Amino acid sequence: MGFPIDDLLATVPADRVLTDPDVLAAYCRDKADLCDAGTPLAVVRPRSTAEVAATVRVAATHRVPVVPQGARTGLTGAANAVDGAFVVSLTGLDRILEIDPGEQIAVVQPGVVNAELRRAAAKEGLAYLPDPGSWESSTIGGNVSTDAGGMCCVKYGVTGEYVLGLEVVLADGEILRCGRRTMKGVAGYDLTGLFVGSEGTLGIITEITVRLRPAPPEARTMVAVYPTVPAAGRAVSSIVAAGHRPSMLELLDRTHLRAIEAYRPMGLDTEAAAMLLIATDTGTGTDLAAIAECCQAAGASELYVAEDAVEAEALTSARRLAHPAMEHLALQAFPAGRGSLIVDDVAVPRSRITDLLAGVEAISGRHGVLVGVVGHAGDGNLHPVIVVDHADQSSMDRGRLVFDEIMRLGLALGGTCTGEHGVGLLKRDWLAREIGPVGLKVHRAVKAAFDPDGIFNPGKVIALP
Amino acid sequence: MGFPIDDLLATVPADRVLTDPDVLAAYCRDKADLCDAGTPLAVVRPRSTAEVAATVRVAATHRVPVVPQGARTGLTGAANAVDGAFVVSLTGLDRILEIDPGEQIAVVQPGVVNAELRRAAAKEGLAYLPDPGSWESSTIGGNVSTDAGGMCCVKYGVTGEYVLGLEVVLADGEILRCGRRTMKGVAGYDLTGLFVGSEGTLGIITEITVRLRPAPPEARTMVAVYPTVPAAGRAVSSIVAAGHRPSMLELLDRTHLRAIEAYRPMGLDTEAAAMLLIATDTGTGTDLAAIAECCQAAGASELYVAEDAVEAEALTSARRLAHPAMEHLALQAFPAGRGSLIVDDVAVPRSRITDLLAGVEAISGRHGVLVGVVGHAGDGNLHPVIVVDHADQSSMDRGRLVFDEIMRLGLALGGTCTGEHGVGLLKRDWLAREIGPVGLKVHRAVKAAFDPDGIFNPGKVIALP
Repeated sequence: MGFPIDDLLATVPADRVLTDPDVLAAYCRDKADLCDAGTPLAVVRPRSTAEVAATVRVAATHRVPVVPQGARTGLTGAANAVDGAFVVSLTGLDRILEIDPGEQIAVVQPGVVNAELRRAAAKEGLAYLPDPGSWESSTIGGNVSTDAGGMCCVKYGVTGEYVLGLEVVLADGEILRCGRRTMKGVAGYDLTGLFVGSEGTLGIITEITVRLRPAPPEARTMVAVYPTVPAAGRAVSSIVAAGHRPSMLELLDRTHLRAIEAYRPMGLDTEAAAMLLIATDTGTGTDLAAIAECCQAAGASELYVAEDAVEAEALTSARRLAHPAMEHLALQAFPAGRGSLIVDDVAVPRSRITDLLAGVEAISGRHGVLVGVVGHAGDGNLHPVIVVDHADQSSMDRGRLVFDEIMRLGLALGGTCTGEHGVGLLKRDWLAREIGPVGLKVHRAVKAAFDPDGIFNPGKVIALP
Repeated sequence: MGFPIDDLLATVPADRVLTDPDVLAAYCRDKADLCDAGTPLAVVRPRSTAEVAATVRVAATHRVPVVPQGARTGLTGAANAVDGAFVVSLTGLDRILEIDPGEQIAVVQPGVVNAELRRAAAKEGLAYLPDPGSWESSTIGGNVSTDAGGMCCVKYGVTGEYVLGLEVVLADGEILRCGRRTMKGVAGYDLTGLFVGSEGTLGIITEITVRLRPAPPEARTMVAVYPTVPAAGRAVSSIVAAGHRPSMLELLDRTHLRAIEAYRPMGLDTEAAAMLLIATDTGTGTDLAAIAECCQAAGASELYVAEDAVEAEALTSARRLAHPAMEHLALQAFPAGRGSLIVDDVAVPRSRITDLLAGVEAISGRHGVLVGVVGHAGDGNLHPVIVVDHADQSSMDRGRLVFDEIMRLGLALGGTCTGEHGVGLLKRDWLAREIGPVGLKVHRAVKAAFDPDGIFNPGKVIALP
C-alpha cells in the first residue's frame, strides 16, 4: 500500500489523473457561489465503469473522500470538492449506449449532457422530457443525482420519474445493477429510487436507463400579466382547480421582469406585479383558451397568446434569461465583481403560493435586501433569488438572515426546503429541521448501510457525525 | 418483562388482541394459496399509530416477529403469518383523514379500502387512479406495501407514483414521517419510495399522503380479436410505437376467453387466439380510431367499439372475471376442492410480449400443464396462470416446474420476475437470481439498517440470513 495517488496511478491510466493545482481549482466547486469548497488531492476522469470502481477501491483503502461530479451546474455545493478528496469527474463517460424506440427507453452514461440525449431521442421521434434550466450543459448523471426538476414538471414530473435502472459503483468498489428495462417492475427494494437525489453520498452512478416518451405535440404558449401578486396566485390556483394540465406554468415577479428588461429589452411590462408564462401541448387550442379564461377571471391586466412557435420561443426566452439577468443586476448593484446571488428553492402547497410571495416581499422589506422571485408556480416550487454583496459582511449576514427566514416561512406553509435543487451544503441544516431527529437518524442509518466508512461526498446532505 | 402477550395487554386495550385459534387461522394467509403460512402468537388490531408503535415496542423487546397485514388480497404470501408472530392487522385504521381538492391530495390511514378512497375523491371531482384488480377489497396500505399495479398503469403508472408521503412505525417503535405534501420536493433520501413496495419488511406504514388527479374524461372502450397470438402482440407493439397512450391495453388468451365464457356466457369468441381490450380517456374518439387502425393492420379478425358506458363496462367486466373464471375452471378440472392456481406475474420489454406468449405456450405443452395468460399487455406485464391439483404431488411438481421455466424465460427476455404483485415468499428465490449477489448484499444492508433485529416480516422478500 503506497500513497493514494501512487496506488491510483498503478490502477488507472495516468492521463485520467489530474493534480495540477490550477486544474484542481477549476474542478473545486459548482454554481453555489457562497458554499465552501475544499482542495482535492486529485481530479480523476475515468473513461469506464471499471476505472470508476478502481478509483473507489483505492479511495476505500486509504479512506480518501470521493466527490462525484458532473458538469458542476448544481446550486447547492453538492459537487464541491472536499479537502484531500478524489474528485471523480464523470463528464468523460459521455456515451449514449442505446436508444430503443420500440421500448421507448435510452441507456446512457452519466456524463451525457441533457440536451444531447434530447436531440438523440428527437431523431427517433421521442422525447426525453426532464428539462432543468441547465439542460444545455448539465449531465444526466447530475440530473439523476439531484433529481432535477424544470419547467415541464408541472405536467411531466421530475427526473426521477424517468429513471428505470442504474449501474452504481458502491463504497467497496463493487458494481451494483438495480432497476429494470421494463415499464413495470416491483422486484425488491426500490434502490434505483434511493440513489436518485442522493447527491453522490451513497454510490457513483455509472449508467442510467431512462424512459423516453412519444414527442408531445408542439406547445402553444401565452403570457398573462397581473397588477398584483395575489391575482397571479389566484390564477394559478384556479387553473389547477379546474383540472387543466399545462405543460408549463411559470411565474416571474416584478424584480425579474425589470432585471430581464434591463438585461435584454423585449418589451416586458415592468410595472406589472407578476407575469405568468403558460403553455399547453395537447395539440388543440381549446385547453389554452380555457386557461386564458381562468387567467382573465383572476384579474389579468393583459393576456397575450403567441401566434406561432417563434413567438412562443421569444416569450419562453424571457423566463430562460431570468438567472443571467439577475446575475447582471447583482453586478450592477454593487462595486465591481462583488454582486452575488443566493438562489433559493422552496416548494409549498399550490394553494399557499400567494402567502409565500407576500411573505418573501415582507422579509425582503424588513431587511432591506432585494429578493426577486421566479419559478414553477404550477407546482408550487418557487426560487426566491437574494441579491447580496459577497465582499460586505453585513450584506452577507442580512442575505443569510433573509434566506433563513424564507426557509422558515416555506416550512411553516407546509412546504419543503428544496423543490428541485437538492440539499448539498447549502440546506443541510434546513433538511435536518424539516425531517426532524427521527428522519435524520434514518438518513444516517441508510448512509452507513451503503457507505460505512463515509467516503462518498462526506458532509453533503447530512452533516458529518 | 413478562410474556409477550401480557406485555401487549399492558400497553394496548384488550379488545385489540386476538388469540383464539380459529381467529388466528383466519388471519394467517393471503391469496397465494400455495405459500406456507405459520401460526401467529396473536393478531393485533390497533386503532391508532400509537397502538401500532406500542405493539412494535413489545415485539422488539421480546424479539417477536411482526407481520403487518391489510386485506390479505396479496398473491405472493407477503402477508402470511410467521410462527410466533404478532400479526398486525391494519384494517381498523380505516379513516380518510383529509381530502384537499385545492392541492389534489388525500391523507389516509392504511386500512382504507382502495374503492372507498376512489369514491371519496370522486365526490370532489378528483380521481385516485391506481386500480389493482382487488380494488374493491384491498387497502391503500397493502397497495403501497406491494406497489400495486392495475389496468390503468399503462397510462397512469403504479401506486408508488401517487405516494407523496408516509408515516411509518420503525423497528424500535419510533414514528418516522417522510415525504411531503407538495407536488415537488427533493429534501434528502427518498425514504417514501423505499418503503413503497417493501412488503412490510422495513416498517409499518400508518398514514399515507397520495396525489389525486382531476377525473379524466369518460373512457371509450373497444375489443380486438386475433386469430393468432403473434398478431395480437404486433398490435400492441404498433400501438405503443405510434405514440398512443391508451388508458387500458389488456390481453386475454384463448384459455381465458373459454374460461370466462364457461363461467359467465357473454358471447366471447372462444376460437380466437387472443383478445385485446383497449380504452382511451382523452375525451375524443380520434385516438381510439387511430388505435383501431393499428389493431386492424396487425390482423384483427374482429373489432368492436362500445357504443356507450354500459357496453364499455360489459366489455371490461370480461377482463375482471378472469381470475374467478380461472378459479372455476381449476375447480372443474380436478376432483372436488383440489384445483388451484399459481398466478404468475412477469414483466418483459413490450417488444418481447409475443416471445413470452409463445414461450409460455411451449412450456405448457412440454409439461402437459394448463396455463392461461392474461394481463397488462400495454406495459409488458402478463400473468401466466398455472392450473394445478394441489392434492396431487406430481401435478404440483409439474406446476412448480412450469412456474420456474416461465420465470427463467421472463428474465432471459430482459424482464423482471414481478411486474406488480411483489416478491413475498413466492418469488424470493427468483428475486435473488434477478438482482444477483451484489443486489442481494445491498438488500440485506438496507434491511439491517431499518430492522437490525429482523423483527419485521422475517423471511419475506429476502430469505433469512
